[in-house]
Amino acid sequence: MTSKRATASEDALLRIFTLPEAPDSTLSVIEQNLSHNLMGFLKDSIVAIEKPLTEIERDFQQHQIPEMPQFVSDYADDMMANLVAHSVHTSSPSFIGHMTSALPYFVLPLSKMMVGLNQNLVKIETSKAFTPLERQVLGMMHHLIYQQDEHFYQHWMHSANDSLGAFCSGGTVANITALWTARNQLLKADGDYKGVSTQGLMKGLRHYGFNDLAILVSQRGHYSLGKTADLLGIGRENIIQVPTKENNKVDVEQMRTIASKLQINNIKVMAIVGVAGTTETGNIDPLDELANLSEELSCHFHVDAAWGGASLLSNKYRHLLKGIERADSVTIDAHKQLYVPMGAGMVLFKDPTFANAIKHHAEYILRQGSKDLGSQTLEGSRPGMAMLVHACLQIIGRDGYEILINNSLEKARYFARLIHQQDDFELVTEPELCLLTYRYLPHSVQQLIQAARDSGDKKTLTTINQLLDGLTQYIQKRQREQGTSFVSRTRIQAEPLIDNPSIVFRVVLANPLTNHDILKDILIEQISIARQDTQHLPQLLALTNSCN
Amino acid sequence: MTSKRATASEDALLRIFTLPEAPDSTLSVIEQNLSHNLMGFLKDSIVAIEKPLTEIERDFQQHQIPEMPQFVSDYADDMMANLVAHSVHTSSPSFIGHMTSALPYFVLPLSKMMVGLNQNLVKIETSKAFTPLERQVLGMMHHLIYQQDEHFYQHWMHSANDSLGAFCSGGTVANITALWTARNQLLKADGDYKGVSTQGLMKGLRHYGFNDLAILVSQRGHYSLGKTADLLGIGRENIIQVPTKENNKVDVEQMRTIASKLQINNIKVMAIVGVAGTTETGNIDPLDELANLSEELSCHFHVDAAWGGASLLSNKYRHLLKGIERADSVTIDAHKQLYVPMGAGMVLFKDPTFANAIKHHAEYILRQGSKDLGSQTLEGSRPGMAMLVHACLQIIGRDGYEILINNSLEKARYFARLIHQQDDFELVTEPELCLLTYRYLPHSVQQLIQAARDSGDKKTLTTINQLLDGLTQYIQKRQREQGTSFVSRTRIQAEPLIDNPSIVFRVVLANPLTNHDILKDILIEQISIARQDTQHLPQLLALTNSCN
Repeated sequence: MTSKRATASEDALLRIFTLPEAPDSTLSVIEQNLSHNLMGFLKDSIVAIEKPLTEIERDFQQHQIPEMPQFVSDYADDMMANLVAHSVHTSSPSFIGHMTSALPYFVLPLSKMMVGLNQNLVKIETSKAFTPLERQVLGMMHHLIYQQDEHFYQHWMHSANDSLGAFCSGGTVANITALWTARNQLLKADGDYKGVSTQGLMKGLRHYGFNDLAILVSQRGHYSLGKTADLLGIGRENIIQVPTKENNKVDVEQMRTIASKLQINNIKVMAIVGVAGTTETGNIDPLDELANLSEELSCHFHVDAAWGGASLLSNKYRHLLKGIERADSVTIDAHKQLYVPMGAGMVLFKDPTFANAIKHHAEYILRQGSKDLGSQTLEGSRPGMAMLVHACLQIIGRDGYEILINNSLEKARYFARLIHQQDDFELVTEPELCLLTYRYLPHSVQQLIQAARDSGDKKTLTTINQLLDGLTQYIQKRQREQGTSFVSRTRIQAEPLIDNPSIVFRVVLANPLTNHDILKDILIEQISIARQDTQHLPQLLALTNSCN
Repeated sequence: MTSKRATASEDALLRIFTLPEAPDSTLSVIEQNLSHNLMGFLKDSIVAIEKPLTEIERDFQQHQIPEMPQFVSDYADDMMANLVAHSVHTSSPSFIGHMTSALPYFVLPLSKMMVGLNQNLVKIETSKAFTPLERQVLGMMHHLIYQQDEHFYQHWMHSANDSLGAFCSGGTVANITALWTARNQLLKADGDYKGVSTQGLMKGLRHYGFNDLAILVSQRGHYSLGKTADLLGIGRENIIQVPTKENNKVDVEQMRTIASKLQINNIKVMAIVGVAGTTETGNIDPLDELANLSEELSCHFHVDAAWGGASLLSNKYRHLLKGIERADSVTIDAHKQLYVPMGAGMVLFKDPTFANAIKHHAEYILRQGSKDLGSQTLEGSRPGMAMLVHACLQIIGRDGYEILINNSLEKARYFARLIHQQDDFELVTEPELCLLTYRYLPHSVQQLIQAARDSGDKKTLTTINQLLDGLTQYIQKRQREQGTSFVSRTRIQAEPLIDNPSIVFRVVLANPLTNHDILKDILIEQISIARQDTQHLPQLLALTNSCN
């Protein structure tokens, strides 16, 4: 980045802390564009055609903090050219590959207010009204799940020594917080033993006489659970990934069998994790059955509803998550389908005294009996993101979320029907929430697959699937590079007769601005890209010809 | 909160995702005020006189998510009255109790841009240019500490399989990440043993033949280290808090003795943590000596410079942190003295391959060999906060930070002199960085203390200190409630002859807008409040009279 440099002087420095940008300055003009027409700004500022990462990296090579200050306007120009132009239009209605979406407009000025106020939620002294606000948001989310009565919330919501949950930077920290608490509750102080929190895991296992701990979860569980097991000292191999049955739902009978075997080996099942909205297919585990099993095993029951939890806001579809109200803890991300910007996860605890297992104090803050939120969170200093969740819950309301959630589910069902209607596509997983997977699969190849299945010809199936994997990857990558639309890809079991999972397109239809025409266009673009593939498609078609 | 409600309709809902607030709407007017005069906005909007928390809580009692949507303007009005009015003016030049400060103006529009772009740094697909930008910021901070040559950064900064550090929501997550990595490197895979990450802590200790792990740190270490030991399964009692010598610096000889005893008991010292800027007194441990000791013990050396690390930007004072370049990992918070808004912590690793010990992958993201930043972070989805650090580093520059850091240190020295000059105050800890502690201590009481010390009269000293604690607490609380200024309080050893630590005022002089007059006024206000105390001061004075 070449640019004019400002001169460092004390006066000039103090000015950046006291004087705003002039209304006609570069940064002010950029901000006005953002304010007046965010979607237009993003569309105009982000270049459509993908620039290779290695080229982008050239603008971020300098490893020394520059000596001389830079004028704000020059910096803003640089960033528009080098950063904004090559960022991702995550709110585009045709960017349906990840759990990002258009955001409601009001979060922009409110975010700016949040930054300007710069509160620190770790303690009352630097947050004041933000603390009761955060507790209220946790109360509302707790009520959304557990629906306790008014008396319950009057008693617990603002209680200094307890908490209905914890605000986190995201679902990963929420899952870690839940399982950390569960571990500490399981190996709590007992007689001479001061608890795992004080004495560590090894002495805890010894005191309670366990050979090891285990966590049971579907093979579709989020990768953050492996990270959690690593962090907590439990070990990734003790996250037991239980196979799924139809619709990517965990097989509870197999889980029960596994649990029995673990018990025989004196390995204590510390927690069962139910997935409410798997990241890759959007399916929901049978939560009631999992609740039953965790009662049988006397273990913690956590539900990872980071993504699917928002569906509780739909009266029409909340039955899909039945049983979640029996969970001891639940993770929900507000930055997914609650339409809050990045950085807003939450864990909720059924029992408001549960988080006392991770309580900590310090002299200068978090004094005993204070209402400081930091005494029961993994993180320390934290921004006032709860405000943005609060704003969305109030401004959109239950009625608004009902429409948003229902529309997204129904849009996914529409897209599934649309894929079914195509000759050359295969729907791989049906949408239960607003997520589905599919792949491009020419009609003639479908017939070939059917023939190979009928004759049990695994070799041909393997060959076809390898070629299809290459084709899917080619289409996904090219479509991303073309910049008009984006679907993601993952690997899941698409062919029952062979062991290898297949590469599939994955779409999440959470963006309220995505409409039917956009979905039709995405399929049309994929067909057109597929036909440009000179490697896999010709081989696939050759295979079909040789068999006919 | 009573308010008009909007009606939920699909059209109205889509509008909040597509149409900005009108320029004359309540929220737009609020935003303009923020933009034109942030300090004025904060001064006018935050009420000075403290409202009791229980009263504030009344506005946040509702536990049900409202059914009906609310108009944005009504919500904005409600929040100005209930939230903003009762938040804390953390950027006020007379709010010198915590590590918050005025922020440079340009971070407001840039934050808004960050929120509008809503990138997710966990993976390239949702962040693109933000990923190389974040890697560059980590590179610059790495260079600030370790000062490797150009070749080093060309090789490692954008390397897909390695990382110079990790961006975190704050210093706590940074400390956890560092010690998590250290634990996993120590108990790494070895022969049949697959490593602590895979097999858990108990098998790791068994395989390597350790009875336990320990972490050595000064008794002034941050409370996040206890949390880390808890989380990692090491146990809080295995964070060994080593006493400090003069100036709150850890006693390295005692640490060495403790380490020897641990070795005899076959307890492996996993890491030594040096504190570079203790939270309570701002002192820096003898980092070079700690580096020597960790070499002797072959253990990880982590420096928690969450707060003090910014001082590396001052050529004049960076010598205070000498030895930090020998640390295996370093925590620095940008939301402290780098003047970035809340939510920007970092951990830097001397060895770019070090973080491979916590590496993880998933099918749909973080594929092997991708440049996704999420494969070596504790957190998952994360916002593009690195942009704000990048902006501050470029716009303020080394020269600008030199002035800001030097001024803040010199302001602290000025305040220390000012306190020394007062008859009725005692400076408890001298500022090494821009943090100091002191207390109100009437001259006559000082004489009484001296007499009691000379005669070794611990009983009198204890009585005096209890009364002084009450007085300090009274002044601190009243000053906060009056709303003009704020100092924090903590407990540290102020009286050498008795065991109990004393309550002291704690100030952090990081805000560039704090000037000498403000500091004088704070002392004047404290004297005036002290004289209103009808409980402790009269008793103290009575004691002095009875002895004269």
